[in-house]
Amino acid sequence: MSAPRLGSIESGGSKFVCLVGSAPDRIEAETRIPTGRPGPTLARAIDFFRETAARTGPLDALGIASFGPLELRPGHARFGHLAATPKPGWSGVDVAGPFAEALGVPVGIDTDVNGAALGEGRWGAARGLDTYVYLTVGTGIGGGAVIGGKVARGLVHAEMGHLTVPRIAGDSFPGSCPFHGDCWEGLAGGEAMGARWGSPPEELAGEALARALRMEAAYLAAGLRNIVYTVAPQRIVIGGGVAAFAGLFPLLRTELTATLAGYPGLPEHAAEDFVVPARLGRLAGPAGGLVLAAGAAAAARRSPGAGPSGGTGA
Amino acid sequence: MSAPRLGSIESGGSKFVCLVGSAPDRIEAETRIPTGRPGPTLARAIDFFRETAARTGPLDALGIASFGPLELRPGHARFGHLAATPKPGWSGVDVAGPFAEALGVPVGIDTDVNGAALGEGRWGAARGLDTYVYLTVGTGIGGGAVIGGKVARGLVHAEMGHLTVPRIAGDSFPGSCPFHGDCWEGLAGGEAMGARWGSPPEELAGEALARALRMEAAYLAAGLRNIVYTVAPQRIVIGGGVAAFAGLFPLLRTELTATLAGYPGLPEHAAEDFVVPARLGRLAGPAGGLVLAAGAAAAARRSPGAGPSGGTGA
Repeated sequence: MSAPRLGSIESGGSKFVCLVGSAPDRIEAETRIPTGRPGPTLARAIDFFRETAARTGPLDALGIASFGPLELRPGHARFGHLAATPKPGWSGVDVAGPFAEALGVPVGIDTDVNGAALGEGRWGAARGLDTYVYLTVGTGIGGGAVIGGKVARGLVHAEMGHLTVPRIAGDSFPGSCPFHGDCWEGLAGGEAMGARWGSPPEELAGEALARALRMEAAYLAAGLRNIVYTVAPQRIVIGGGVAAFAGLFPLLRTELTATLAGYPGLPEHAAEDFVVPARLGRLAGPAGGLVLAAGAAAAARRSPGAGPSGGTGA
Repeated sequence: MSAPRLGSIESGGSKFVCLVGSAPDRIEAETRIPTGRPGPTLARAIDFFRETAARTGPLDALGIASFGPLELRPGHARFGHLAATPKPGWSGVDVAGPFAEALGVPVGIDTDVNGAALGEGRWGAARGLDTYVYLTVGTGIGGGAVIGGKVARGLVHAEMGHLTVPRIAGDSFPGSCPFHGDCWEGLAGGEAMGARWGSPPEELAGEALARALRMEAAYLAAGLRNIVYTVAPQRIVIGGGVAAFAGLFPLLRTELTATLAGYPGLPEHAAEDFVVPARLGRLAGPAGGLVLAAGAAAAARRSPGAGPSGGTGA
């Protein structure tokens, strides 16, 4: 059987990354489209897939790892639509439907974070695991859980950035979250770090950087502890700009071990392969789109004619 | 097709509740065995199922909702064994194996909390949902998540009692958890309430009770917020002694709405059917054993000859 020909979109606030291929190292065509108004942006992306298909052969399916918040409840009338978002013009937009209609192929859609989780699970740092968490720690914090091989999703997709965690003694920074002030993201996202220390984390150095990373590790560990006790992941994979700081991961492992305090006493939680950096980098989201496309193709074989579907690890 | 004949055990620190039936309202035989030393206790339970089968017909399968901590990783050499537990003599005991061997039927096993979660999902307050959380708030706090119809489980079963949450301003109680001091259970379990207020919660009255319940609702809401953001459940069902206090649930809904602070802004989170009391009461665990038994019977039909299996919602 030949490799499937899958389309993938990672849609973000600044650009749509569109590609055709079967794996992150088997990409046949790729383009980047600046995120403008919805109509023209979606039309340009559709054109890319149509032209690629005309040139190299038809697609089997398309997967979209999209910025949110997205309606993803199966069977919901607005499945695959964006909810209220500050991005001008995008609130309520149907992201999945226009592709399904224009391209005539099965379409899978999930959040960008869940997409990255699926990509890391298929080809990256969570390969071979069926229950793990992917976190991105950049300007903000977002997370997705894959449990028993499927993206966890109930009323809404998982979130994780807005956990409540105790304030670290001596930290008087009020927090940067517009909803909660001092939630996890409000205390430990990149925006919070920049506001607390007076300059973006990438501009800190020496003792100022060391102090910032110690506090960052302690706050991140508090949220990781809550995730560990809630879903018992086999591994936590962390991507995003803040996670790229050399030296953060050893501090984070030490702080996590300290805050777990011997409960439940598993050696796995203290091991170097429990909290790890993401491996796919910028390709995590596009790789997730490929996993979503493969899942949509499989779902269409089981239920021909069904509409766009949510993410699975299948 | 006639109803299956299922055996169920809820094993606790003080007693083993054993029954045969097909549903909480269709129980053919039942017994309670005080939890003594492992050998004789397990032998008496085995005798009950043997004698019931001899009298009324063979069992199709057995399910066990057991106190923990349990090893539940599929394929693990010690699957179905207890890990270190303070209960004298029970550390390391194989809970599932002796029943599978003596009775010759498929055996399913999970924690008592996950069992109660499955029971509430099949016959109780989470009926018809596939992604929900069951919490017990008694002396301590324990929780289980059912996600996409299956009990969430990774390195270990979910836990939830030991989340870290911010201290409420003015509360100087140090916390009662032997591992963490002021974790969620250490601040909001029944033992913590008794220690903080100087008498067990069921002995409080009037303004003292009202004050205790206000603080309890605020602490419980903090942990619920973390669970909501991590697994996005469709509903949270709460059982256990503390949850039985009249008046706690309205306070809890108000506090949860306040701490979510409009994010992600779903009306469902503020609805009366989002955080609800458990419905099966003392029967939740035994009902969970029946669900585990049915799951084990189904697993055995798919893979005849496999060993004891973990819980699913199937």
